[in-house]
Order: sequence, then structure tokens, then C-alpha cells
Amino acid sequence: MLRTHHCGELNMTHIGQQVTLSGWVAKRRDLGSLTFVDLRDRYGITQLSFNEEYNSTLLEEARKLGREFVVQATGKVTERSNKNAKLPTGEIEIIVEKLTVLNPSLTPPFTIEEDTDGGDDIRMQFRYLDLRRDNVRQNMMLRHQMARYTRQYLDSKGFIEVETPVLIKSTPEGARDFIVPSRMNPGQFYALPQSPQTFKQLLMVSGFDRYYQIVKCFRDEDLRADRQPEFTQIDCEMSFVEQEDILNLFEGLVQYLFKEVKGIDIGQLPRMTFDEAMHRYGNDKPDTRFGMEFQYLKPLTGDRNFQVFDTAECVLGICAKGCGNYTRKQLDELTEWVKRPQIGARGLVYVLCQPDGSYKSSVDKFYNQDDLEKWANLCGAEKGDLILVLSGNTRTVQKQMSELRLEMGQRLGYRDKSRFSALWVIDFPLLEQDEESGKWHAMHHPFTSPKPEDNGKLESDPGAVRANAYDMVINGTEVGGGSIRIFNKDLQARMFKRIGFTEEEARNQFGFLMSAFEYGAPPHGGIAFGFDRLCSIFGGADGIRDFIAFPKNNQGRDMMIDAPSVIDHRQLKELGIKIQ
Amino acid sequence: MLRTHHCGELNMTHIGQQVTLSGWVAKRRDLGSLTFVDLRDRYGITQLSFNEEYNSTLLEEARKLGREFVVQATGKVTERSNKNAKLPTGEIEIIVEKLTVLNPSLTPPFTIEEDTDGGDDIRMQFRYLDLRRDNVRQNMMLRHQMARYTRQYLDSKGFIEVETPVLIKSTPEGARDFIVPSRMNPGQFYALPQSPQTFKQLLMVSGFDRYYQIVKCFRDEDLRADRQPEFTQIDCEMSFVEQEDILNLFEGLVQYLFKEVKGIDIGQLPRMTFDEAMHRYGNDKPDTRFGMEFQYLKPLTGDRNFQVFDTAECVLGICAKGCGNYTRKQLDELTEWVKRPQIGARGLVYVLCQPDGSYKSSVDKFYNQDDLEKWANLCGAEKGDLILVLSGNTRTVQKQMSELRLEMGQRLGYRDKSRFSALWVIDFPLLEQDEESGKWHAMHHPFTSPKPEDNGKLESDPGAVRANAYDMVINGTEVGGGSIRIFNKDLQARMFKRIGFTEEEARNQFGFLMSAFEYGAPPHGGIAFGFDRLCSIFGGADGIRDFIAFPKNNQGRDMMIDAPSVIDHRQLKELGIKIQ
Repeated sequence: MLRTHHCGELNMTHIGQQVTLSGWVAKRRDLGSLTFVDLRDRYGITQLSFNEEYNSTLLEEARKLGREFVVQATGKVTERSNKNAKLPTGEIEIIVEKLTVLNPSLTPPFTIEEDTDGGDDIRMQFRYLDLRRDNVRQNMMLRHQMARYTRQYLDSKGFIEVETPVLIKSTPEGARDFIVPSRMNPGQFYALPQSPQTFKQLLMVSGFDRYYQIVKCFRDEDLRADRQPEFTQIDCEMSFVEQEDILNLFEGLVQYLFKEVKGIDIGQLPRMTFDEAMHRYGNDKPDTRFGMEFQYLKPLTGDRNFQVFDTAECVLGICAKGCGNYTRKQLDELTEWVKRPQIGARGLVYVLCQPDGSYKSSVDKFYNQDDLEKWANLCGAEKGDLILVLSGNTRTVQKQMSELRLEMGQRLGYRDKSRFSALWVIDFPLLEQDEESGKWHAMHHPFTSPKPEDNGKLESDPGAVRANAYDMVINGTEVGGGSIRIFNKDLQARMFKRIGFTEEEARNQFGFLMSAFEYGAPPHGGIAFGFDRLCSIFGGADGIRDFIAFPKNNQGRDMMIDAPSVIDHRQLKELGIKIQ
Repeated sequence: MLRTHHCGELNMTHIGQQVTLSGWVAKRRDLGSLTFVDLRDRYGITQLSFNEEYNSTLLEEARKLGREFVVQATGKVTERSNKNAKLPTGEIEIIVEKLTVLNPSLTPPFTIEEDTDGGDDIRMQFRYLDLRRDNVRQNMMLRHQMARYTRQYLDSKGFIEVETPVLIKSTPEGARDFIVPSRMNPGQFYALPQSPQTFKQLLMVSGFDRYYQIVKCFRDEDLRADRQPEFTQIDCEMSFVEQEDILNLFEGLVQYLFKEVKGIDIGQLPRMTFDEAMHRYGNDKPDTRFGMEFQYLKPLTGDRNFQVFDTAECVLGICAKGCGNYTRKQLDELTEWVKRPQIGARGLVYVLCQPDGSYKSSVDKFYNQDDLEKWANLCGAEKGDLILVLSGNTRTVQKQMSELRLEMGQRLGYRDKSRFSALWVIDFPLLEQDEESGKWHAMHHPFTSPKPEDNGKLESDPGAVRANAYDMVINGTEVGGGSIRIFNKDLQARMFKRIGFTEEEARNQFGFLMSAFEYGAPPHGGIAFGFDRLCSIFGGADGIRDFIAFPKNNQGRDMMIDAPSVIDHRQLKELGIKIQ
């Protein structure tokens, strides 16, 4: 028995007991004839006390303990003279009678503290030490709780967890697959799943009715800051349902998670169509923690000979509350900000609503006070506010204004990570057109069902076809998305044709699914949540990396184990492949 | 709303209610002016009733319904005249008022019944139909329950589920890795994990204290009947524990699973050393559902000039109860059975214990009735029993006799799949010697700790070193195994050296682990259960394949999706590899 208790449980009720604890030396304080050691484990910290009068040999040993040594200490639980109200164990200490160093430790390359002095690279290389930091460990505990309550909720709703295969078939559609050479089938390859999409649909054909899985998925994409080649999904599918059934059930999941994990009542989730989201926020994942909604000023800007607005398809304004005192320098900086290539606006028009009720604007030459007052009224701007205006092609200016809105929200502190605003965005377009090639491709994926009433327009007016597809958005991030699926072979064939598959290609890649649709496929639909992202939002963090135990860096490299790596020549030969 | 109820819930309390059901046509019976349809979903079967008097048009429609059509039916719940006590819904039927065919179905290539007429290949190709069969679906439900209760138990014991990476580093030690070319790091490869072994040990170094994961693992081995290239483990690790702590905790898991999933009290698990298991059963995973233990007859066989026994290192007997009436033909057949190359015995000696108290034996020429009586006494054989005797080199004859014992147990009906006998086998040897090369390798894996008292013999007498390693055995199958790990860098280095790693090799492959051991690694140990196997044993089945939703065949091929498959040339080029 290496311990009788852990380091987070002893208190006044244990006074006088003989206990044995094991853990790490978090801190050591030498006070002459006294030495205190903070012993740490996953559960907490307990103070060990060494006293010259009581046992001078032990005191000497204790003084040799370095940071992160693993020790076992036996002694009596005693009331502290100097209590620490912040610690659950802060009323007691252990007067140590026996001390064993179970394992010494080199000095860690960075401090094991919330604000560590370790940079990203060194933390990733020594991830096992980084994971000792309380905040990173808390993230992992949060992730565990998220998974646990997700399963609890879905179990209670009759969902069955089914494991789908990891070694599957490569499909050129969508993102790049990771592939795995097959030794037993030379010249052939498995692929790692980008999602279990077709398998979960087949489970519906099998009659499983309600399926879920918390499952690893893989995408060989160029990694942006916050993407990982392997990531985790909460993957779900249901039979005999319509969109409304799915929205209600998974709204319930997120409400349950907020309640159980964060103690927050998130309330009912508003539903917003894709068109409305684009109109009000210029974004299909609007951050609804704050307003600052788009106002369409074009009807108020004509007949004043301001060419920029006159030739623009769309003139958009937003109101930044309390920013009417922005200096010329601040406004110039904002203008530069929107002109950065990432945003791409050609300029920024502003209107300062002055304390005296007058307006000061970068377009004073063209618009008089009355004009500007009308703008202000439409934007809901009052004395002391700032109106920011962009113009251009509708879709482009919506996108630019969305970025500016988010930036202003950030600057004004509206995007508080401890506040949560969730909603459904629904009625997405089924198809998107590639600007260059003019080709149509599926906005969600090729298994998504068009709305029955738009079904007929698939060939004649593809851009107008809305999908039975939905996203859940929290704080401006898409945390989940799904759709009602096609379950009719002919409709699926039309869809494949629409997005440019030949019949042969469709059969080669999805023949098994098309065939399954001929043997009694039920109406079905589902959803998948990005689990890493969901955890990071619940954890109030920006990045997902510290919610993954062993993440990879932007080159797809695990810095700790140093993977990927070179493979033995014989191994490649056995697999029937060679390096180019 | 596609249904108001599912097909397993309606009963007498619903009489008179208007309901809508959706499901599959399981059966249709036409009785002239009446037609009955059994509507099936995951939850059960409900009878739909169509009556000429009531609605002749609907009757006509119902008569056109084929097997496995997906239909929606609305109607009134009515008491049946002909009740079916076997069905939970057997007291009622639905008088259908509205019928919609949601999706027709071709005739399935095999019957969707427990005893299907479909062969293995066709079932695998149409796995989505095979999964509709009640017994296969029950297996999947069992698997879900097993996972669920496993998590419930481990959660209650303070274990944290942590996901470890799937894209890791290839290590030549052990079985063959599946590898994944890295596009971003040309010429380099990831490997898929054979187990999360090193990661879970690192999590212990990180202070996670109690870790678990139900996780996919991968081995590119030549597939025997019941092996899959991807399989699932319940993977666990604990810190500050000794072997006893682990045995107790995971004995608790298996007791809990038997109780919750099967309603069986499996009781305490006996513990048997490896040596004892070999001595009594010739097998480190003894089937203890029955006795038939080995008896060592050598001391009773000397001085009779029977060369075969005189020159043998070991003479082993077992008693087959009630087989004293075996005919010459049966005994010859048994003799042929042990002489098959898979068993490899050179012959079989038998002693029939006759009803009159006399003995009839194949070695009557050498041994008299008194001799045979002594054998019988040692073997516990009585009138009407059969003694079977094999001889030779100890390890070899133990192995052969183990096979014979299992075969006899099978023939005598002792290996009833609805009875369960579980035990721990402990004190395994740390190392095994390769007969050809004379090299030592780790019996469990190179991270397993020797017993402290045997530590010193690692270099001087490696074969005598016992490990802190343990297996859980149920019904003669190893369902789980684990060990207390090495947590000291120097001991780990000695172990790597012992099994033939150069220092450089050890550093290249496991440098991160060796390095982690320098920063305060706690004592730790763990266990992993083969989840597919555990489920199949709970399900009373021989194979694991029907406990996996989408298994692969013996060529590692998914017959349904037809993977692995040929990859596009451009894709290979992008990955920097080519086919040899």
C-alpha cells in the first residue's frame, strides 16, 4: 500500500490519524529549524511538516528534496497553527515520521505553474510535464466530464454507441485522406475516416435507430493555427426523424452539458436562417453575445454625388457604442485595419456622434447633418457613439463588415469568454458554386437532403435549393452541424450527378450506400459536434491544443515522441512501397 | 413527426389511442379478407391489421408490401382477438387508417432471421442487412452495455478518460505496425498504435493518477480466424499502486459487469501462479469451468520396462469421467486426434476403468492391475471412467495434454458457454528465450517490472526472473493482462539491454519515456482488456466478428465498402511514395 489517502482529502476530522501520502514535491520552504513541503497529487496539496526538535535526521532529508521529487511520507495528521483557508486541506499538516524518496527528479525545464516560463516548443517537447500544470490538467478533467455527460445524456435518450472502423476506403471527395498501405493487399491502401458519415447512415439502414460515438477523425489538411490532423467528434444519427426532432434533442444535449459541467442555464436556442444570419451579421456563425447588427444604409445614401456609395451594391453600417470620442489616430488605425489584405476593404467611412448632437464624418463633403442623422437613427446611434460604414458588393461587404464587427466587439469587451450565447443556424443552401470553374459542390456534404419543396430546382436553379441542414453556433464558433440525409437512391443519384460525379465514380465510391438505399432505408438525419472545439469553448479558451492531451504542432509533428519519423527500409519493402 | 410511438411499447393501456408507427415489414400474412403485417423496429414488433370490411383500398395496398419495405402506419390501438403472449405488444394490434410507403425494398439476398440462409461472404458484403438480424443487433447492444458499465465503474473509481493519439511513431519491437505516410514531412511516416502503452505511462508521470480509455488499436499481423487488424481495448493505468491494488480494482470491474450486464454473481477470482497453472492445466489460461486436472504419473511408471515412459521426462494423466465405455474405434480416433500435427503427440495411452473394478489398458503388457489401480487412484478415476496418458518432455507434454483436456471437456459438455469461470494468473516469467537465437525477449512487454526480489537475477539468471505481471482469464481465454511498470530509468535501461537494444536504439525509440522517468515518475501499473473478446465471451459466442459492427475478413478486407483499394496516382505523388 503506497498511500492511505490522497493529497486532497485530509481535514480536521482526521486529526490524530496516522496516514501515508505519496506525491510530488510542489514547494519546499526552509525556516531554520522547520521545513515545510507542499506535497501534490491530482487531488490536491497537503503540507508536510519537518521539525528539528522532533526529528533532525528527517529534517535534513527533507531539505534535500528537490522540486518534482516523488516521495512517500508517513506521519500524523495535526492541526496547523497557521491555517490556509484557500486549501481544502489548509487546516492540517502531516508531522512526518517516515520519508521515502520514490523517485528523484531533475529540475524541470520550465516551472510547473499556471503562468509557466516555458515556451510553446519546450512545453510540447516535455508535454508530460506540461500536463502537470494545474490549468492544463483542469482542461483534461473538463474534457472527461464533457464526454461523460454527453454519454449520459445520449444513453438516457436511447442512443447506442457503435464503433465504426478506422481502416476504411479513400474517397477523393472533400479534404485529403490519410492513407495506410495494406501489406496483405499489395498496391492497395486503406484510408483513415474524415468522419464515420457513411457508416452511421448504414447503421440507420440496419435499424439501429439512434447511434452515437465519440470518435477520432482524420484530415490531411494544411494546418492552420487551430487545426489538428486528428480530431474528435461527437457523432450522432437518428432514424424516423425530421429536422425539428434533431434540433430539439441536441439543443437538450447542449443545455444539459452547460447545466452539469458549468452550472449554467443556457436557455432555449434561437433559430436563425442562413439568410437572416448573413443579413444581420454577415456570417453564418454569428457571435450573438453582442448586437452591433448590420444596418443597410444604401436607401439613405443616394443623390449626393458620392461615387463610392453610388456605385456600390450595398452600404453597411454598424454602431459602436461609446466610441464617439475616437481620435483621428484611432480612426486611421481602424481604417488601416480594414484595408489589410485579410479584410480587403478599400476604405472606411465613419460618423462620430458628438456630445452636442452634431455629427462629424469622413464624408462631410457629401452628406449634411440631416443625412447623417438619418443614418444614426437607422443604426440606433446616439450621442457619444460611432458609426462605421463599408460599401461594395453585398457578399463581400457583409464579410468585411462581419470581421470589423467582431474586431469592435473584441475591443469593446463584448466577447467575454465566461458568457455564452448559443443558437441554431438553419436553412443553409444545399450547393455552392465554385467561382472559377462554375461547378457546383455540396455545401455540407453530398448526403444532405434538399428541402422537399426545393427538390425540383436541383437541376434548374441549383443555387436556390435550400438544404435540411443546420449548424449549432456558440459564441461565434460552429460547434456542430448536421442534416437530414437523402435516403432515396434516385435522389442520391441526382445529387451525385449535380456535383459532377459520373455514374461510375458514384458507384465506385459509394456503391455500397446506393445499394443499401434499395433495401429499405428509413428517413434519417444526424449531427456531429467538434469535441475539441466544444471543450475549448466550455473551458473559455481560444485554442483547442490545451484540451488535447498530446497535440501535434502546425507541421503535424508530435514534438514529444518525434513523429512522424523515417521508416526502416525493410518495412517499406514489406509494404510494397518506396519513397519517391 | 414520423411516429408517435415505437414498435415495442404499445399494450392494453393504449387501447383506443390514435398512433403512428414507422418501421420495416418483417412479415405479411394474407387471410383473404384480412391481412396482417408485423412491423419491426429496434424496439420490437407491432401487428398492423388491414380488413376488407373496414377499408378495402388499404387492404389492397397492404397486400403489395414486400419484406423489408419501410412504412408508416396510422391507426387505432385495438385489443387482439388472438393474443400472442410471447410479444410485449402481443395483446394489441393497430387497425390501420393510413399507410405510407416511406421506402420500398428489393428482396434481401438472405433472410433477416436468427438462422439466416446467408453465407459468411454475402453477410459481410451486405453487412447493413446482416446487422438487422436480431441476434447480431443484440450483440451490438451488449457491446454498448459493456462499454457503458465499464465507464460507469471506472468513473466511480476516479478514473479519467484521456484520448491518446492515433498518429504516432513506429517501433520495430513487437508486432508489425500499420504506417501512414506524412505529406507534410516527405519520406516520414506515422504509425498507428498497437496500444497506448507509452502514452498512458506518460500520463502517470503527468500525475493523472487514474487513466482509462476504450480505444482502437492496430496490428498488421497475418490474420488468424479470430483476429482483426483493428481491435478495441479497455486500457487502464494507475499510480502509487502495487499489484494487489490493481487485481482488486479490476476484479471489481469484472464482477460489476457480470452483475449489471448478465445478472450473474461471479464471486471472488481465484489467483493462480503461472507455475501452478502450467502444472495443473499445462496452460497459462486454464479453462477452470471443469477439473480434469493433470496428474503426474512418472513416479508410478518405473521398473516395468516400458521404454516410452522410462525415457520420458514426464508422464501425464487425466481422468475423463464416464468415458470408461469408449469403444476401440473411439479410442483410435482420439489417438489419431492427438497425433495430428497441430497437437504432435506420438501416441496415446489409455486405461478403461471397467464396471467390475478391473482395468483395461493399451499398456497391459507392461503394467498389471495393481499398477493401473495406483494410476487410477492418483487420477481420481472410478469405475466407468477413462484415464488418458501422454508422455515426453515436460513443457511439450503439458501443452499436448492441455489440448487433449480441452477437447475432452468440449466433448463432455463441460465448456458450457452460459457458465463462467474467471481467475487471475500471476507471477509470469519476465523473459522468454527464443529457442533458435537464444535471445531473451519480454514475455509481456519491455516496460514490465521484475519482482523486486528477482531484480538481481536480470543479468545472471534471466529465466528465473518473475514479473509483476498478471492476466485475467475467463473460460480459458485471456481477456486482459497487465503489469506493474518499471519507473526507474536505470532499471529500464537494464531491461532494454537485456532484450538486445543498443543504447542508441533505446534512445531513438523510447528516449521520451526514459527522459520522462528522470522528472519524477511515480510507481505505476495497469491493465488492458481485449474488449471485442470480452464482449464475445459475455455473449456466449466463439468468434469476435459478430460483436464488431463492420469487421474485416481474413485478408484484412472490408467486403462491404471494398477496402483496401487502389489509390489515385496523384495522391501517391503528393505523399511522396510510389508502389514498388
